[in-house]
Amino acid sequence: MTQLLKAREGTITEEMRHIAQDEGCDAEALRKKVAEGKVVICTNRHRNTGKTYGLLGVGQGLRTKVNANIGTSQDYHLIEEELDKLRAAEKAGADAVMDLSTGGDLREIRRRVMEETTLSVGSVPIYEAVVEAAKGGNAIKDMKAGNMLEAVRRHCEDGVGFVTVHCGATRGLLKLINDGKRVCGVVSRGGVFLIEWMAFHKRENPLYENFDELLDILKEYDVTLSLGDAMRPGALADAFDSIQVHELNVLAELCVRAREKGVQTIIEGPGHVPINQIASQVQLQKELCHGAPFYVLGPIVTDVAPGYDHITSAIGGAIAASAGADFLCYVTPSEHLSLPTVQDVWDGVMATRIAAHAADIAKGVNRAMEWDRTMSQMRRDRNWEGQFAICIDRERAESFRATRPTSDNGDVCSMCGTFCVFKVTDDAG
Amino acid sequence: MTQLLKAREGTITEEMRHIAQDEGCDAEALRKKVAEGKVVICTNRHRNTGKTYGLLGVGQGLRTKVNANIGTSQDYHLIEEELDKLRAAEKAGADAVMDLSTGGDLREIRRRVMEETTLSVGSVPIYEAVVEAAKGGNAIKDMKAGNMLEAVRRHCEDGVGFVTVHCGATRGLLKLINDGKRVCGVVSRGGVFLIEWMAFHKRENPLYENFDELLDILKEYDVTLSLGDAMRPGALADAFDSIQVHELNVLAELCVRAREKGVQTIIEGPGHVPINQIASQVQLQKELCHGAPFYVLGPIVTDVAPGYDHITSAIGGAIAASAGADFLCYVTPSEHLSLPTVQDVWDGVMATRIAAHAADIAKGVNRAMEWDRTMSQMRRDRNWEGQFAICIDRERAESFRATRPTSDNGDVCSMCGTFCVFKVTDDAG
Repeated sequence: MTQLLKAREGTITEEMRHIAQDEGCDAEALRKKVAEGKVVICTNRHRNTGKTYGLLGVGQGLRTKVNANIGTSQDYHLIEEELDKLRAAEKAGADAVMDLSTGGDLREIRRRVMEETTLSVGSVPIYEAVVEAAKGGNAIKDMKAGNMLEAVRRHCEDGVGFVTVHCGATRGLLKLINDGKRVCGVVSRGGVFLIEWMAFHKRENPLYENFDELLDILKEYDVTLSLGDAMRPGALADAFDSIQVHELNVLAELCVRAREKGVQTIIEGPGHVPINQIASQVQLQKELCHGAPFYVLGPIVTDVAPGYDHITSAIGGAIAASAGADFLCYVTPSEHLSLPTVQDVWDGVMATRIAAHAADIAKGVNRAMEWDRTMSQMRRDRNWEGQFAICIDRERAESFRATRPTSDNGDVCSMCGTFCVFKVTDDAG
Repeated sequence: MTQLLKAREGTITEEMRHIAQDEGCDAEALRKKVAEGKVVICTNRHRNTGKTYGLLGVGQGLRTKVNANIGTSQDYHLIEEELDKLRAAEKAGADAVMDLSTGGDLREIRRRVMEETTLSVGSVPIYEAVVEAAKGGNAIKDMKAGNMLEAVRRHCEDGVGFVTVHCGATRGLLKLINDGKRVCGVVSRGGVFLIEWMAFHKRENPLYENFDELLDILKEYDVTLSLGDAMRPGALADAFDSIQVHELNVLAELCVRAREKGVQTIIEGPGHVPINQIASQVQLQKELCHGAPFYVLGPIVTDVAPGYDHITSAIGGAIAASAGADFLCYVTPSEHLSLPTVQDVWDGVMATRIAAHAADIAKGVNRAMEWDRTMSQMRRDRNWEGQFAICIDRERAESFRATRPTSDNGDVCSMCGTFCVFKVTDDAG
């Protein structure tokens, strides 16, 4: 039985108890939310042998979670470098990682990632199906419908906690896409492959057609289904169009079917979205999908800042999470330009954690505001050691202060010196 | 006559015409907004000898503007370094700079800044009054009421386009502050000096008491009054408290008095604010101050991220500007830790420009969305040279792509390689 089925019959599992304790919330209240599908507990029978290994709670009332994507590409496929990124993501405080490798030995990479981290690991199994098929020369032509579900099963066996599956990219969308009104068309890799596959083979998306079979696999391992938004806008100009909304409607139907079968489900969201549409997009998802957890990529709030997309997405992510999104996928500074480096991973996780935490304060998440209050009190007291100890990135904060010290190594900083507002206030006393 | 008085009598000035052309809006519509006080045109009779030198339009319907603070401190007061920061800010695309120097020869620094830039320069004259008084050993004890207005006149003579004056820090606030409910008390340097000065001298704030005299000076030079928020919250826990709102009410009254006299006026705002309060804060300011331009510092949306306050403030600034704020003062990564370096200035301006532009799309500012549409079309076309030419920071974008090139130097990037969604789509035809 899955966490969802257990919750529905009234059982508070070890996993629920652990998450409730970690978040400082009531275990029975959490169980109810799991039963309603408003919270998911990502786990995997093949991995979660201990109580907390790979455990991840996502949804209403919980802390907004942060995911970091890592993984090889065709041009850069050194396992060791990806493991360095994994360690950087974990050290920087990511709650989950997705292994999106498309270069090298994909299964070996996944196994090494699983060995290395205690975090929940997500994946996009269709990448593996595509990469395997591409070895024959033409992924679109050669990929078989069965390959996609086989890849899902393989990933479940290997211990992933959640899988992105693009079940909502249905054949009915082809006409809308071919209308050509979008500036950037389809920008999800899984989505593009499925769209081109359907067009070439003149068949429905196997992940939609064989949805029940997919659910059976996920249920067997209690892996969470993350319904991918293959049609997410990849340009601000494309946001909230009929293609995106059409797919979201399909995802909403599939979400209900998955829940009925006892499979925990997350909905994925955009992408590139103007600030003034973000809250509406979250609201629509929450309504259509009956409060299912919303996992957004960014959203990026302007297209013009390559090199700074950790910032464009931190803005969008903070607004989305404040409006109710539950899970933020980071975007790194190298987005749209290159495969990220270890430093890019670090910067991406930090920016996204800032967005998530700022949103948690806005949402009124348990204990979120306490951190800021304690930090501010230490700032007021010029307690530098205390600030360094609890701030989000100790090394970075210390390096700024060390690079430009005050001449007397005093308890003020080099911005204001003896005109420090706290010092002036204390001295006037 | 000031821009405001000319607008009120129906004259479209050269300055209005220039700004209308630059922003692609109607000059007569702009004149009306200047007449209503909803737009200010920062200028200075002693500086603006050409038509556009030091010109800055801020307010409703115009592009959200970005200010970069530069200036020496007691510990770091090399003029050349501050001029490097000035050049970096201008190159990065700041719309204005404020010289907040508190170390070295303040007047000489200001003159050099004026010589070096074509941007509008703002200042906080009370810093100079305090620094001068501090030379006698005790700024609070020794500063005379007259010193403050003298400093304002000196700055106007030197060509500043706008001055921050903390007229709203009235003696009535002392009791509220002494209640001690705030975590961080008063965090505006000008504010702390005035509060301690009033407490020590048992007198009202001279900038409030002699407000008409202050207006006469500003009117003479047609310098814009930026009513500083000396009581801005310096911690999330202190936001939107009675102290802040009390001062805002005073600023609203003073704004009306300034407009009556023909002095253009901006209202300054916080500070440290939780995301869920930002829109309400902007709305309150706009209502109380009859649509006066709102100039916000950040706001910073979490206290826990020293080293990343360009990001915490980009989140807050984007939300504030989307809700109607008109002018964003940048915050650099070194905020709360040290005097910024040239690189920090660059990073701060870039983050704030991203916030301002993302908000301009949300606000529907003239032509803002065109930039993103063009960029997205170039991205779709894998037109790398085009993207580099128009993106917000060419050097940075190029460096990411150059550091991790694709093995075949192809027209894709090293993230997706031949699985590039645009390439797959094009190849499938």
